[in-house]
Amino acid sequence: MEMNFSQHISGQFNTDLEAIRSHMMAMGGLVERQVANAIEAITSGDTSPADEIIRREDDVDRMEVAIDRECTQILVRRQPAASDLRMVLAVSRVVRDLERIGDEAQKIAFHALEIGGSANSGFCQQAIRYMGAEVCKMISGALDAFARHDVDGAIDVVRHDKLVDQQYSAALRELITYMMEDPRSIGQAINILWILRAIERIGDHARNISEQVIYVVSGADVRHSSLTEMEERAHPDNAAED
Amino acid sequence: MEMNFSQHISGQFNTDLEAIRSHMMAMGGLVERQVANAIEAITSGDTSPADEIIRREDDVDRMEVAIDRECTQILVRRQPAASDLRMVLAVSRVVRDLERIGDEAQKIAFHALEIGGSANSGFCQQAIRYMGAEVCKMISGALDAFARHDVDGAIDVVRHDKLVDQQYSAALRELITYMMEDPRSIGQAINILWILRAIERIGDHARNISEQVIYVVSGADVRHSSLTEMEERAHPDNAAED
Repeated sequence: MEMNFSQHISGQFNTDLEAIRSHMMAMGGLVERQVANAIEAITSGDTSPADEIIRREDDVDRMEVAIDRECTQILVRRQPAASDLRMVLAVSRVVRDLERIGDEAQKIAFHALEIGGSANSGFCQQAIRYMGAEVCKMISGALDAFARHDVDGAIDVVRHDKLVDQQYSAALRELITYMMEDPRSIGQAINILWILRAIERIGDHARNISEQVIYVVSGADVRHSSLTEMEERAHPDNAAED
Repeated sequence: MEMNFSQHISGQFNTDLEAIRSHMMAMGGLVERQVANAIEAITSGDTSPADEIIRREDDVDRMEVAIDRECTQILVRRQPAASDLRMVLAVSRVVRDLERIGDEAQKIAFHALEIGGSANSGFCQQAIRYMGAEVCKMISGALDAFARHDVDGAIDVVRHDKLVDQQYSAALRELITYMMEDPRSIGQAINILWILRAIERIGDHARNISEQVIYVVSGADVRHSSLTEMEERAHPDNAAED
């Protein structure tokens, strides 16, 4: 009798864990589309998706609050331990990063509207398109790694974040040169500056999500760690062999 | 016997809760000094504190990881419920915001070094000094409100964040005018732009900390709420009287 009861509890618990994971993935899907649409609004010169992005930002916020509440309820009702507790804490941190990615997508949409359609011809368009595609891949890569408990996939995302940071620095230098050559363009260029910054921040948040994959799988808190430290702490056995 | 045992557990639990709260306050004190020193490095033209700020950023990071680990251990060992659980979750969120404030202080220090000493004469100095003092007050105000479970103090911090945002917009407009008038100053001005942004972000993080005060006291999750909604949800009784 007691065993049945405990199996029932444990079955319900797994259902709860599965629910927060799948809600987090749904939120991740929405956030990734928000970013892709925001990049499209900038690079295509068609600002019509921007209003939709700004409107859907409320959905992203609501999802964060709802999933975080589910996490708290699991802590209260199930008192999870070990890897289950890490999973709940990680989901709660990941949805916070997803919400901030949503914020950055909304900022990009606002700047797309300020720049207007055809007016924005050329400034760092290639960098925006490249970095934008890169951070979209990073978001889905980080979420896939989370779903599959794939530490190497997570580390790969961190590696890509370094490339995005380099691309960002190069784009800033390019932009400052444009501004100096044509001071009348400064107002427009500042919008591009904020867009580049927002994309770079999205990369940082995707990196944060990847760090949570390593936390769930290995229990190691790799925030503020270098890539090398991260690899060692995610794979302690390999490191010991070296 | 059982009662003594449970009193012992509960006494130890209170000690644990007190420990994370006091470690959080110590971290808050360090972070506030980092911000004040960073503002000083910009506005005094004496960049000598900048290296110290950059060095101490590691301490801030370590404190975040250590306090967050304490929070997780309390969840595992004590399985807190209701307001105790909210306290643990809130501390864990607050230290994350404090860590990000530390990041922003470090960014300001880097830009202070790039600008160098006397070279930075004038650009938005008054705005930086004013906004800097304001966000320092916001950090200590938010932490005081947390310590005293003071919802009105927390709401006051949120009110100040709106002022800082307005000041930030005005300073940006001023800066863009300088850039257009003197394109040779653009490199320097971009450093000031990042500094203004960092200060504005610090205000946002202080606001986030205040939201956690309301969460601890009333159980209401007021993230993404307007000031009016926040006041109503923090004081549901008053709202009902209206």
